[in-house]
Amino acid sequence: MKRIAVLTSGGDAPGMNAAVRAIVRKGIYEGFEVYGINYGYAGLVAGDIRKMEASDVGDMIGRGGTFLYSARYPEFAHREGQEKGIEQLKKFGIEGLVVIGGDGSYQGAVALTKLGFPTIGVPGTIDNDIPGTDYTIGFDTAINTVLEAVDRLRDTATSHVRTFIVEVMGRNAGDIALWTGIGSGAEQILIPEQEFDIAEVAKDLKRGRLNGKKHTIILLAEGVMSGDEFAKKLWEYDEDFHTRVTVLGHVQRGGSPTARDRVLASRLGAKAIDLLKEGVGGVCVGVRGEEVVYNDIVETLANGKHVPNLELYQLNKEISF
Amino acid sequence: MKRIAVLTSGGDAPGMNAAVRAIVRKGIYEGFEVYGINYGYAGLVAGDIRKMEASDVGDMIGRGGTFLYSARYPEFAHREGQEKGIEQLKKFGIEGLVVIGGDGSYQGAVALTKLGFPTIGVPGTIDNDIPGTDYTIGFDTAINTVLEAVDRLRDTATSHVRTFIVEVMGRNAGDIALWTGIGSGAEQILIPEQEFDIAEVAKDLKRGRLNGKKHTIILLAEGVMSGDEFAKKLWEYDEDFHTRVTVLGHVQRGGSPTARDRVLASRLGAKAIDLLKEGVGGVCVGVRGEEVVYNDIVETLANGKHVPNLELYQLNKEISF
Amino acid sequence: MKRIAVLTSGGDAPGMNAAVRAIVRKGIYEGFEVYGINYGYAGLVAGDIRKMEASDVGDMIGRGGTFLYSARYPEFAHREGQEKGIEQLKKFGIEGLVVIGGDGSYQGAVALTKLGFPTIGVPGTIDNDIPGTDYTIGFDTAINTVLEAVDRLRDTATSHVRTFIVEVMGRNAGDIALWTGIGSGAEQILIPEQEFDIAEVAKDLKRGRLNGKKHTIILLAEGVMSGDEFAKKLWEYDEDFHTRVTVLGHVQRGGSPTARDRVLASRLGAKAIDLLKEGVGGVCVGVRGEEVVYNDIVETLANGKHVPNLELYQLNKEISF
Amino acid sequence: MKRIAVLTSGGDAPGMNAAVRAIVRKGIYEGFEVYGINYGYAGLVAGDIRKMEASDVGDMIGRGGTFLYSARYPEFAHREGQEKGIEQLKKFGIEGLVVIGGDGSYQGAVALTKLGFPTIGVPGTIDNDIPGTDYTIGFDTAINTVLEAVDRLRDTATSHVRTFIVEVMGRNAGDIALWTGIGSGAEQILIPEQEFDIAEVAKDLKRGRLNGKKHTIILLAEGVMSGDEFAKKLWEYDEDFHTRVTVLGHVQRGGSPTARDRVLASRLGAKAIDLLKEGVGGVCVGVRGEEVVYNDIVETLANGKHVPNLELYQLNKEISF
Repeated sequence: MKRIAVLTSGGDAPGMNAAVRAIVRKGIYEGFEVYGINYGYAGLVAGDIRKMEASDVGDMIGRGGTFLYSARYPEFAHREGQEKGIEQLKKFGIEGLVVIGGDGSYQGAVALTKLGFPTIGVPGTIDNDIPGTDYTIGFDTAINTVLEAVDRLRDTATSHVRTFIVEVMGRNAGDIALWTGIGSGAEQILIPEQEFDIAEVAKDLKRGRLNGKKHTIILLAEGVMSGDEFAKKLWEYDEDFHTRVTVLGHVQRGGSPTARDRVLASRLGAKAIDLLKEGVGGVCVGVRGEEVVYNDIVETLANGKHVPNLELYQLNKEISF
Repeated sequence: MKRIAVLTSGGDAPGMNAAVRAIVRKGIYEGFEVYGINYGYAGLVAGDIRKMEASDVGDMIGRGGTFLYSARYPEFAHREGQEKGIEQLKKFGIEGLVVIGGDGSYQGAVALTKLGFPTIGVPGTIDNDIPGTDYTIGFDTAINTVLEAVDRLRDTATSHVRTFIVEVMGRNAGDIALWTGIGSGAEQILIPEQEFDIAEVAKDLKRGRLNGKKHTIILLAEGVMSGDEFAKKLWEYDEDFHTRVTVLGHVQRGGSPTARDRVLASRLGAKAIDLLKEGVGGVCVGVRGEEVVYNDIVETLANGKHVPNLELYQLNKEISF
Repeated sequence: MKRIAVLTSGGDAPGMNAAVRAIVRKGIYEGFEVYGINYGYAGLVAGDIRKMEASDVGDMIGRGGTFLYSARYPEFAHREGQEKGIEQLKKFGIEGLVVIGGDGSYQGAVALTKLGFPTIGVPGTIDNDIPGTDYTIGFDTAINTVLEAVDRLRDTATSHVRTFIVEVMGRNAGDIALWTGIGSGAEQILIPEQEFDIAEVAKDLKRGRLNGKKHTIILLAEGVMSGDEFAKKLWEYDEDFHTRVTVLGHVQRGGSPTARDRVLASRLGAKAIDLLKEGVGGVCVGVRGEEVVYNDIVETLANGKHVPNLELYQLNKEISF
Repeated sequence: MKRIAVLTSGGDAPGMNAAVRAIVRKGIYEGFEVYGINYGYAGLVAGDIRKMEASDVGDMIGRGGTFLYSARYPEFAHREGQEKGIEQLKKFGIEGLVVIGGDGSYQGAVALTKLGFPTIGVPGTIDNDIPGTDYTIGFDTAINTVLEAVDRLRDTATSHVRTFIVEVMGRNAGDIALWTGIGSGAEQILIPEQEFDIAEVAKDLKRGRLNGKKHTIILLAEGVMSGDEFAKKLWEYDEDFHTRVTVLGHVQRGGSPTARDRVLASRLGAKAIDLLKEGVGGVCVGVRGEEVVYNDIVETLANGKHVPNLELYQLNKEISF
């Protein structure tokens, strides 16, 4: 294998640039020629591909977003798109591909793997919902961004003795809400993985207020319901609840990556190169405890499932009263 | 005059604590006994008043929100509430009052002044919409908070080649949108003080996209219309506009005050004490250029009007294409 | 066991307050009375001890430093001091103690354990150099603080095409330098655990400059030598090296804890309570991968040794050219 | 005038890129061709000059440092260097020049002006020590950077009941120390413009400690003396003073510019273009209150003098006890 390529796909995540940097530099270090593909699978099919030098990723480790751009491209779900992609790779003489992204991006990597093209998945998404790894690139930055916002909200909540509902990202996974709920000392955390009784929540909130709590923060994963919807439901239980809703939105995706995300991205990117060098394809890399690991990507996506640490959910009940 | 008091009222703003600190410390330095009133005018009427020492405001200069709490209290618009307030002040032997807050808080200060109670207004609000001062306490922090959020959004906007509408605070005043629009290099700034033609905006955006702009940021003051409403209107002009809306909300009110807000709050708070010491009441303090100034509060509120620097509006058109 | 106490000792670390909060709240949740001891072992011996309520730790999760204060107290190395400490604990009817701190603090906990007093160590230090845990409370915040500073230095280094030596904390452990070296894309990382040849370093730096590198960053753990000393040695190899030295100093200890430090502190603090509830003393808690663990504190301190992840050292050589 | 050029010189400052962006964009808007000169006067003499397009300054408004690079170049103090510079400008057909920088950079602009080349000075330095303007580009960012560092130090200072000496930049001007001293609630501020008696300082510090102050922060401008020197002097007065010294160093120069610096840089950069368009050269721009102003650069440098607001010095004595 002489030439390899890298693309970023799906929602952008802080640390994607650090991962691309590690792939380019480590790739060159190991003797590869490394190509960058713009706009994810869309750019792959369109042939938006260029050779990268070590200097192209200079000063990139600290930048948010992805300088290779990302794009939605549903056509890559179909055989036709996949074959066009492989055609382009062959045209450029590329023999291995690294895909950085989330769930949907891994589907594309699985498809290429099944068609025989050596592809490696690197987990890059703020949601932390990819099987095969404890943490995804971008998650640590996102939870610190959320925490900073909630710390600000708390200033106002305390000043006015108010209840705030903070809707955070996480359509299927409650990790962001869970970690930032613990981290901000939120009174309630609501995540898709854990059922709850809204009457109980209302009762808890009331009890807190009667106990003299100056403010109440509720961390709500968007996958449960919207902040507005939740506010309405609470209000039905108790007309005294004048909650304020804040939807943090895309702010959560941006920003310079944290130390941990930069280190994780560097390690996972370098591992992808080690694997390609050994001729290993069709796998996804990840971190387990302190170890960098890899697993069959087809199997991981078929059978793996990300499960949040629900001990944190219970822990919060015991320290946030 | 021996005893004076301070309260914070209306929406909280970063730097209110720094102002209270300056009032308490400088007051003690000048020989006053200084009392703190909790929960604004509501606490005044209820007699929620306590003596403050220099150490009570230790480590407060950097805290967001207001540790004296704030509250809405519409009853203070009526003569009855105002007289109850003065009664409480007299009961505690308090002879002068400093009110830190925005527009509504100044109304209360005017009422007390008209009833003969020496009251001084200190402009504390993130909106920068108080007459009698170039800047209000909290504005500088708020625009930096917004800017940090927009910088994050830009990461995502660039990665995905998208248009973002960012709705910021400012019901009557466009200062936040104006300053952060310039500061973030936004393609469009929409404020209540400046008419615009949505067809022109749509045309400009289209031109930018055709010129190869990787992202577009629109800074919208909430006083113009909501972000969702604006997105819908844009879409009517061009179905290709798939804008994302982010409503920054109460996050804008929080956070540790910036250097400038801390210095401004310290200067204005100290000036209020100087004035009370000289027996001057019924005024509001402010900053004009580098000078701390004061004006009759009744007249300022009756005839003054905050006008944003519309040169900035024109400037942005000339450097953000 | 009915009454327990908590103290912080040694150098302060971000997240210590979050740990105290978890210990107080979880302790109360489990039916304990929880006492706080001011100024570490000095306060213990002096009897500076008070009962804590849940509200005493409100809004503490995000504060840097330790609100229980810390102090050096070499006298606690002697039997006499230790016995006085136990006397005080008995006087207050306290039957279990949680000590949050670093190496030296653990020594005190070992001494109390050997004298039969149930003591639990919680690793709190920015240096990440405590055996029995992958990470200490404060490390994650410290590396992000360093990274932010190095990102700023890089602006200047790039503008002026300069070489910066950044001296960071770590007398015995190179973890801070290692992680921030990777995270900042530093050209060189120098740590006590890894020998190096200064002639090689000089040669590498020269090569980088000849290759057109706009700036060079060297991350140096203070345990290797001082920044000034290193600059002088480099200069002896090549008089063209006009390096600038920045000593980050105590800034590294402060700041609001990151999400990860808050979660880690909450988990470890709660675990200490679980153990005391089960009657387990003489242990230290820690984290291994995703699991909270505990080990005999005497044995851990006698035989354990913190080893940094030296793969990171090699990794940096392969991606920072 | 058809073609103009811009360079940055001297110590870099946050907001220089925002100024270059405004000059390039506004220049193009007004019909100029705008050239960028790398490495300040050194690059000017060497002819390191290139045409710039609007897109070259995209995403530059938020970047620290200067992407045009800066360099020391003492040769430009001599007539020969200056004439070589003008020769290069003429070779490129450039008829007007904007110089962004500090004191030394203005000297170069004065020399070119005297030789008849239309040159405009834009004040860019963190020190705020340029005559002809209330504020320089970079000062606001620098004081917020310092403040953030001091806030961190305070965590540790409070935890350990310690005295910290913080040495900040300012060889001739005390503005950084003055503003951050007020902003951080420092107990002492020491600046070159204000004499002080070290015995008095020592007495004040002792009094504060006896009054129960948990920490003491001393803000020291480097122009007074070094932090280490000052610590030694204090210690001679009282052997109980175990102060810690932190030298913030080059960290103060970096970082993404604040809102105010971005707006100031945009306004001053645009004004420079307005002036060149009107055929005005030989001036320096600045801000006075809310107004953008300009003055003869030769006269300003000869007779003007930056004077810090010494009311702040007195104010701090009255609110930081």
